[in-house]
Parts: sequence; structure tokens; C-alpha cells
Amino acid sequence: MSQPEYDQGPRIAHAGSVHLGTPDLQKSLWFFRDLLGMEVVEELDGTAYLRGYQELTHHSLILSQQPEATVLGYSFRVQRPQDVELFAQRFGEQGIKTLEIGKGQVAGRGEAVRFLVPGSEHPFELYYDITKPLAPEEIRSKILSNSSRRRGLGVRRLDHINLQTGESTVEQAELWLREALGFKRREVLKTPDLLIASWLSVTPQVHDVAMGRGAEDRPGQFHHVALNVENFHDLLTAADQMRDLDIEWGAGPGKHGIGQAMYLYVHDPGSGHRIELYSGGHLIFDPDWQPLEWSPRQEWGGTWYGHTLDTGPGGSFLTTTPSAGL
Amino acid sequence: MSQPEYDQGPRIAHAGSVHLGTPDLQKSLWFFRDLLGMEVVEELDGTAYLRGYQELTHHSLILSQQPEATVLGYSFRVQRPQDVELFAQRFGEQGIKTLEIGKGQVAGRGEAVRFLVPGSEHPFELYYDITKPLAPEEIRSKILSNSSRRRGLGVRRLDHINLQTGESTVEQAELWLREALGFKRREVLKTPDLLIASWLSVTPQVHDVAMGRGAEDRPGQFHHVALNVENFHDLLTAADQMRDLDIEWGAGPGKHGIGQAMYLYVHDPGSGHRIELYSGGHLIFDPDWQPLEWSPRQEWGGTWYGHTLDTGPGGSFLTTTPSAGL
Amino acid sequence: MSQPEYDQGPRIAHAGSVHLGTPDLQKSLWFFRDLLGMEVVEELDGTAYLRGYQELTHHSLILSQQPEATVLGYSFRVQRPQDVELFAQRFGEQGIKTLEIGKGQVAGRGEAVRFLVPGSEHPFELYYDITKPLAPEEIRSKILSNSSRRRGLGVRRLDHINLQTGESTVEQAELWLREALGFKRREVLKTPDLLIASWLSVTPQVHDVAMGRGAEDRPGQFHHVALNVENFHDLLTAADQMRDLDIEWGAGPGKHGIGQAMYLYVHDPGSGHRIELYSGGHLIFDPDWQPLEWSPRQEWGGTWYGHTLDTGPGGSFLTTTPSAGL
Amino acid sequence: MSQPEYDQGPRIAHAGSVHLGTPDLQKSLWFFRDLLGMEVVEELDGTAYLRGYQELTHHSLILSQQPEATVLGYSFRVQRPQDVELFAQRFGEQGIKTLEIGKGQVAGRGEAVRFLVPGSEHPFELYYDITKPLAPEEIRSKILSNSSRRRGLGVRRLDHINLQTGESTVEQAELWLREALGFKRREVLKTPDLLIASWLSVTPQVHDVAMGRGAEDRPGQFHHVALNVENFHDLLTAADQMRDLDIEWGAGPGKHGIGQAMYLYVHDPGSGHRIELYSGGHLIFDPDWQPLEWSPRQEWGGTWYGHTLDTGPGGSFLTTTPSAGL
Repeated sequence: MSQPEYDQGPRIAHAGSVHLGTPDLQKSLWFFRDLLGMEVVEELDGTAYLRGYQELTHHSLILSQQPEATVLGYSFRVQRPQDVELFAQRFGEQGIKTLEIGKGQVAGRGEAVRFLVPGSEHPFELYYDITKPLAPEEIRSKILSNSSRRRGLGVRRLDHINLQTGESTVEQAELWLREALGFKRREVLKTPDLLIASWLSVTPQVHDVAMGRGAEDRPGQFHHVALNVENFHDLLTAADQMRDLDIEWGAGPGKHGIGQAMYLYVHDPGSGHRIELYSGGHLIFDPDWQPLEWSPRQEWGGTWYGHTLDTGPGGSFLTTTPSAGL
Repeated sequence: MSQPEYDQGPRIAHAGSVHLGTPDLQKSLWFFRDLLGMEVVEELDGTAYLRGYQELTHHSLILSQQPEATVLGYSFRVQRPQDVELFAQRFGEQGIKTLEIGKGQVAGRGEAVRFLVPGSEHPFELYYDITKPLAPEEIRSKILSNSSRRRGLGVRRLDHINLQTGESTVEQAELWLREALGFKRREVLKTPDLLIASWLSVTPQVHDVAMGRGAEDRPGQFHHVALNVENFHDLLTAADQMRDLDIEWGAGPGKHGIGQAMYLYVHDPGSGHRIELYSGGHLIFDPDWQPLEWSPRQEWGGTWYGHTLDTGPGGSFLTTTPSAGL
Repeated sequence: MSQPEYDQGPRIAHAGSVHLGTPDLQKSLWFFRDLLGMEVVEELDGTAYLRGYQELTHHSLILSQQPEATVLGYSFRVQRPQDVELFAQRFGEQGIKTLEIGKGQVAGRGEAVRFLVPGSEHPFELYYDITKPLAPEEIRSKILSNSSRRRGLGVRRLDHINLQTGESTVEQAELWLREALGFKRREVLKTPDLLIASWLSVTPQVHDVAMGRGAEDRPGQFHHVALNVENFHDLLTAADQMRDLDIEWGAGPGKHGIGQAMYLYVHDPGSGHRIELYSGGHLIFDPDWQPLEWSPRQEWGGTWYGHTLDTGPGGSFLTTTPSAGL
Repeated sequence: MSQPEYDQGPRIAHAGSVHLGTPDLQKSLWFFRDLLGMEVVEELDGTAYLRGYQELTHHSLILSQQPEATVLGYSFRVQRPQDVELFAQRFGEQGIKTLEIGKGQVAGRGEAVRFLVPGSEHPFELYYDITKPLAPEEIRSKILSNSSRRRGLGVRRLDHINLQTGESTVEQAELWLREALGFKRREVLKTPDLLIASWLSVTPQVHDVAMGRGAEDRPGQFHHVALNVENFHDLLTAADQMRDLDIEWGAGPGKHGIGQAMYLYVHDPGSGHRIELYSGGHLIFDPDWQPLEWSPRQEWGGTWYGHTLDTGPGGSFLTTTPSAGL
């Protein structure tokens, strides 16, 4: 039996934030703040920093006014202060170009390293330091683990990030996430020959990030960011209200077979980026977890019950939005 | 700023199982298997091994027919195969008496080390190897992460273990769990001078184990084991059916302030041990999490809403059951 | 302003029961009794009488072993003892052929009149007397309004009956239900020229019975019977378990726009008849309620959110099962 | 067997509205409109008219700024236009003093008759005509049965009214509600000798109004008005948010044995009146329903599960607010 030793190398701790460009910041703020109930912790120069009511750190979502609906960055927090620098060294040794993001360049955050994921071109940023500001008294919660009171449709935290890249490099990108960043493959959808999508995590969540096979000529594609709500019922309430507000629909409510969480996909009316409201799912505590391999023939992997994911040719669930470069 | 290095020492991976002695095994089986919906994976010589529908390993609950309702053991899985032996060495160096539990002595499990927690006298067992048997076809699930189909009231996995020890040693025991076993203090209830209870985990759960201040002359006390259900509503359904079945009530349904999960406490009709059905709660991903300190004056820590925990003098929530010795 | 006087004529009180023929009674009993949790109150000569846990009367569902999956009768309870005879007289005056069903011919029930609805050919039965047997002690509830304890997936009562008839007579049949039986049109789906479906009730429910436009050559068609569960979440739990049991799917879970209830359509594995699990919906108390008129262009009338009703050409939601004759 | 004939006399159709006096109208509006999500249909001269999102008529709650937190009226809608006058005649024959409330005196409403209930002194008003205004476009729902979109904590309609009177007249008052107004006793809590509380309805609801035994020297007492929400989960969400807002607690969330609905009692922070959020419950369709008789020994009648109703001596659930006179 293998006798693993702990690597002294750097580690990812969890998904930290997504930075969405939006052509209509005010409409996006209405959506994330007023409807979904997130707190705007800081807003300056056309950029707003938001968090869910159960997040103590400065932000998990950044919105920037800009002409194009691109994603400006995907940020992950590392395990130890020195891991930012250690990761930067590792990337340098691999010949990956990196950018240093200075302290405060992103509000509330310390130094970070930015780079493009090999094979997928998504701009990742890794950081450790982040402030934990108290919410203003008028929305502060009596619950110590809640930064603010539950409001709106009850988004409590970032859950995971779902990415796509071209079919010729998706295996490379997924492997790099595992080998260089330490993500573990938890569940995977594949044919005998081809990887279709992989759900990866460093936490007990089934995925902190997912990487899927997309169109060949479009690397760096963003499929969705998932925001966590407390219960299945919160998704039903959200679906009910969003239908009446004519929010652009993606899919749901329904329950995934893969991961066993409930989903509701909609599109931010300010930017068109796909947003998943997400609840539940199984947690993985086994240290010897073997990746669960799903076949496309087990068609209940995508939708176990509820509104179907339209993944047929030209299907509405296949659209993506692009990412910015380095 | 601190620059932590990773310890090459052994680690706990997660809470693995609880071994309950019951004077009426058949009634306990009716409760856990028929009512709560757990699977009996194996049963021999008056001992039954059960798991929830979302557990792939052999068992998370062991029931043994015996005259007294004592707890025979609290088992935790370690992170690496060598950690069983490494922990045993560490305990030996500390002068803690250990027992070797041979492979198969507990069905489905490899070698384990058994010892009493200093200051609390709870019999802990640490193991790594455990089989992952398929459920019989007639209850097997199409969901790869579910060992069996959801049945009964829908218990899906072990959640956490709640222990008590005497007031003069509770600080010692809690500190030992942190220093020797690596549990992190996540939330704590204390006065300026006294530790009342501590919620500890190695996973992102708020607690895998809790240690509380109990009666001085009764170390090794068991307060409850928590079994996880998928949603708050599952607790309401369970409460509804259990009321009608005259299951002995503990408290709930209600929501804890500390941990933000919903609870329903009842007592196994076969043994009288307290069982918590548990759902939700916040997850902790911050690598620099600071323990949340609750004061008894923040009386919403115990019950945020719902049926109250009766913790007054002679209160029904204060009863415990004893553990066996080494 | 109109000054309505109360008609001394007979009245319908509520939908009473549906009598389903099934080619596999044992499988149907597994479905309705063991899975859905209904009580079998009586069983004799290949016919079983069932009720939900919140029904005090003898039965709301009758299952009979027979080669064909036809529906043997749709029964409604009348408001007063004399209304059975008064309705029979009224039908006689209209030239409608009636059959007298003697006391006890249907277990637990008094005298009834049976006839075919003009324009739809559905065999209706009207009765007043019905016994209210206590459930056996081992399943009796402590709740006075519950005949038995909640079990299985929690079906608590019959909700409504959904029927179809040919397109040339659907307007006639719907009008007759209103004029002869006193049902009020509550909501209706129609084009300027054509009635597509009508939701009718004598109670504050949006519908006790619905009548829809079906295939011309098939009068007396049965679309589904709806069984009521307490909460939306019960539908999610049912969907979860039924998926894993490979129960034949209809549609759902989802929420109707029309009526505002949640639905889950499945097919009884013994007979293939479509069964709706149904929860919620709005109640109508206004004495001057005006029927809500939906257009097919308001496509959210059928599915407000969730899994879609497949009503396209050859759609799975269009299948029906036939009724027996007089 | 009895052969009832339909009485041509006047009938109650349903509970229509409650008129609460509040010393702090703005705080009450914050509570009912901003937090609970009710629509303010009209506001003039210190009086606001509100309705739930599933009510089409003008209002079901009236709030008036005034120094004292008294209830100004309990209004019920009658079945036919002529019933207002027919009831007035009936009361006159009984020697009950009545007031005529002119059309428009209460916004949106036609003529009404006002009187004090014999034995209880509660000011009741009976009306038929009431307008059905469309909501402003910015909150109007696409669902035809919803006047506005679901907002806030999701109050959708008035459910019922709960009253108390002195112990020497409670039997008289309850009998009068049945004999003069036609309410049917559905469930009752009584000792062999004494009526403690009675749940009465003209609809299939278990109660449109309840009458309970209160303090002898305080007739015309108001215990609470219940506002209906769609699902049990809505109560949990409301409890969660209200705890954090320090809304004065009554009791709950919990489930009543009597009626089988879930409850959450809180107090309007503007007035102190007790408000129940209410969901579920069984419906009564049987025309020969026999009142369910509960004994105080069946202590699960009040609380089946969840947070307890404090009905001990000096209990918080015993407080009431007074009504205005004629």
C-alpha cells in the first residue's frame, strides 16, 4: 500500500472569487445585491465587491463596469502566506508567464499572482491575505458566523466555478489543475476515449472548480459561477420570483445526479453571465476517494430530476462567455 | 506573519463511526434501519454494522446487544495508512496506554489503535483501512455517490459526535484533541473563565467532534451522535412521524445559532442513547479561521429558532450515557 | 346587481374516489400502499380500497385486478342524503340513462347513482353515505384529523380528477358539469374560439375536476388522478426516490402557473395510469370569482418552473387511459 | 336520517379583513409591507390598506395610526349582495344594535353592517362589495391568480382570526357565531364541562375564526390574525430573518396538532398585536364532518412539534390586545 508523505509545496485552500465584467453594472447590482441578497462591501471606480451573508472575508464576487461581458479573473485562496510566492516559483519553473498583483490592487486583498492556466487560458489569481471587515451595523447579524443578516433570495457564499476549454486541450488543462494546483478529481463524465467534464476539489465539496470540453476555437470560456443557498426550498422560491421578473432562464430547478445538489441556472440581466444557485450535494471525507466515472449513457448524471439541462446541438446550456487575457 | 510548515505527523481524516451498546438490539434496528432508513451491511454475533445511503464505506454505526446502554467506542479514520502506527507511537511517547485492534476484529475494518482520551476517558479508535462493499442489488442506487437508495427518513451519513467530561478536566481534554489529534477549535461557548463546550473539526464542518463540560464524577460521557439528513424539511418530516410513534423526545426541531444547522434530538428506543438528526450548517474554508467565541449571554447560540434545548437545572438536554473503558 | 337565491336542488360536495382497473394489482398495491403510504382499508375479491392518512372516510382510491387498465368509475360525494335521488331524477328528466348502485356494492358506501357524462362518456357515480372506519391500532394516529400515521411518501388525500374527451364535445361536457352538477369554472385555457381545458370546482380548490380537449375518437379518457401531499418538499423527496426505483416518469417536479400548485406526474407501475402528486395551490374564497382565462400564448400556465409538460405532437403528457362504459 | 333543506337566509363567505390600530404606522408598514411583502393598495389619512400577493380584492389588512393598539374591526365577506341587509334584519330582530357603514367609508368597500358579537363584544363588519384593483405594473404578476409578485417573506393572504372573550360568556359567543352567522364547529378544545377554544369555519379551512376562553373582565380581546404563507419552509425562513431583526417573539416555528398547520407567532413591532404566519393544515370537505374534540390532556393539540406555546400561568401566549367598541 502506498505511504504518502505530505508535500511541503504550496496548496490551494478554496475558491475565492470571480471577477465579472458587466456592460450594465447597475442592473447587475440590482440582481446580485437587491434580488439575491448579497452585500456590497465596497464600491469604487466602477467596481463593486460583494459577498454572501455567510462569508466573513472581503468579497467573493467582483463586478466591473466595462463594454464587454468578459470574466476578468478567477481567484483562489491559498493555504499559507508563503504559498503565493511558492506557486509563482513553481509556475516560473514551468515557463508559465505570471503577473504580480500588488496588495490593494484588488480591494481588501494582499499580494497575488496571476497567470493563464496551461491548456485552458483562464486567468487565475492566487492570494492569501484578505481582510475580514464587519458589515455595517444596520445589516450585521447576531450570528457570529454570518457577516450580515440573510436577505433577498438568501445567497450565502460562493460555491464553485465552472470552466470550459477547447477539446484538444481539455485533458491537458484538467491534468494541470490536478498536478500543479493539487485539485483532486472527484467525479468525471467521460467516454472510454474522451473527457467531457471533470469535477475537481481541494475541499470536501464535489467541486471547487469544474473543467469541461468546449468549442475548439474558444479557450478560456466561462460556463458559470455557483452561489450557495441554504436549502432546496430556497431554489424553489428563487425560481418562483425570478420567473415573474423575467430573468433570463438557463435551466432548473432540478437536481444533478453528479454531485447530488439542486441547481437553478439563470443569467445576470446586467451581463448575461450564467449564474447557478446551488444547494446541497454530498461531501467527500474519504481520504482514498476514487473518482466516480459517469458515462454519457447514464443520462441522469446531469439531471436526476426537474427541469432539464438543454445540452443538445445548439442547446441553451452550451453557451459560454469569454475570459480576459493575462 | 506566521509561515506554517506542514507537519509530517499523522492526521485524522474524519469521524468514522460510533459503537453503541443496546439492551434491545431488535428495537434499535427497527429505529435505525426501518425508521431512519440506514442499511445493515453486516450482522453477526449480536452486532450489526450500518451505514447511511450516502456512505460508501462499510459502516458508520455499530450496534451491539448487551445489558447496558454504554458506548463501546468512537472511531475516526486517519488520513494515511501509516497514520495508525504513527499515532500509536505518539500516544506511547505520551505514556498513554493503547490497545491494538486487529484487522477484522471490527467487521470491514483493518488494524486500529484504541486508547482513552486524556482528561475525558472516551475510548477512541483510529483506523485507515475499511472496505467499500456494494449494497445488495435490490437497494442499490443508480447514483454513483449513493451506496443505496434513499429510504425511510433519509439518514445519509454520520455527521459528528458530541462528548462530555468532568468540569475539572474538560479544558485538558479539549486541548489534547487539538494538540495530539489536530482538531481545530471552530466555535466555542465559554465564560471569561470557563470552557462550556467546544466544537472541533479537521474537516470544513463546524464540528466532527464536540467536547462539553459535564458532571465532575462522570468522565467518558456520551451526549449524542448526529446523523446527517439532506434538508431542513427532512427534519420536519422526521419530527412529524416520530411524534406519532411516541419516540422519546429530546429537543427540536430547531436551528442552532452555533453552527447554523437544524436539529432534532430523539432517543433510540432500544438503548436510550440520544441521537441528533442534523441538516445544513455553515462550512469553514478559511485557512485562517478564528474560533468564534460565544458567551452564555448570547442565549441564541443554542437555539436560534424552534423547540428549545432544556439546559436548565435537571434539564432533559443534560442527560448522557456512559462509555465503556479501554 | 344580481340577487341570487339558493337553489334547493342537489349539490356535489367534493371528489370522492377513483376506481382504477389494473392488470397487476400486487404491483399497484406496492406503489400506492408501500411507496406512497396509503392505507388499504379493505381488500376483497381482487379489489382493494385505499385512503390517504388524512382521510377519515372509507376510501378515495379503489384498485381492481382486471386484464385492461381502464378506469371503472369516478365518484363524487353529494352534499345531502337526498341529493343522490334528486340527481337521479334530474338526470332522468334529461334523458340520461342511470344505474342504481346498491348499498355495499362498493365497500363502505351507501346507495349511489351511476351515469355517463353527456359529451364525455365518463362513468360518474354520486353517493352520500360512506363509513368512517378507524384505522388498525398499529397505524392509528394521535392526531384526530389523521386516520393513520403519515407513512411512505406521505399521500394524505385525493385532490382532483383530470379528464379528457373528444374535441367536438368538450364544450358540451364542460358546460354540463357546470349546469347539471354545479361545478364552477375557476380557470380556463382557451383560444378565442376553442376550449382547451377547464378547471372546475365546487370547493375552494381550483379544481375538483378538470375537463380537457382530447382526441376526437376517444371519449371517456382519463388523464390523471391527483393525490395531495403536504408540502413542495414532499414532491422533491418523492421524485428522488422514484427516479431510483425506475418508476415510469410523466413530468415534474415543477410548478403549474394555472392553479399555482407543484406537480409530479408518474405512472402506476401496475396499471400505467398517470398519477399526479400535488401540493399547494391557491384557494378561492371570493363568492364573485371570475374565471381566469389563460391563452396558450401564456406558455407559463402549464409549467411556471421546473420539469416541462411535454405537450408537443406525440408528447408524453398527452397519453390517456380509457374508461369503462356504464 | 336528517334531510336538510338549504336555508335561504344570509351566509358568510369568508374572513375578509382585520383593522388594526397602531401607535407607529410607519413601523407597522415596514413590518407588513417591507418585511412580510404585502402590497399597500391605498393609503390615506393615516390609514393603509394592504393585501397579500394572492388576493385579488382591495385589502385584507387595514392599519390606522392611533394612540392605542386596539383592533378597530373584524370584517367578513358575505355570500350574496343581499346578505348584508338580510343579516342586518336578523340582528335587529335579535335586538342587536347595528351601525350602517356607508359605501367607501372603508376604501374599496361597499355598504357594510357593523355590530358587536353577543357575549364577546368583538366589532364585526359584514360586507359584500369590494373592488378588485390591479396592482401597479411594476409589481404585477404574470400569474393571473396573483395580484402582485411574491416579495419579502411571502405573505399571500389572510388566513383566519383568533378571538377571546370572558369565561362566563365564551360558550354563548361561540354558539352565536354558529347559529346566527352559520360557522361550523370543526375542532374544539374542551374539558367535560368547559369550552376552552373552538375552531370555526364556513369554508373548508379548519377555522376562519376561533373563539377562546379568556379573562372574565376583558371581553372583545384579540389574540391574533393569521397570514398565510405557501410552505412550511417559508416559516423557517421567516423565523430565521425575524430572529436577526429582533422582532418580538410569540412562539414557533412549530406545528399545531389541532388543524395540522405550521405556525410562527410574532408581534408587529409598530403595534404589539400578535401576528401568526401560518402554512398548511388539513381541509374539510366532508359534508357530515363531526367536530373533533380535544382534551387538554392531549397536550400535543397545541404543539405537535417545535417551539412550544407558553400557556402556563402568566404565559407569553396568553396576552391579548383589546378591540374598539361599536
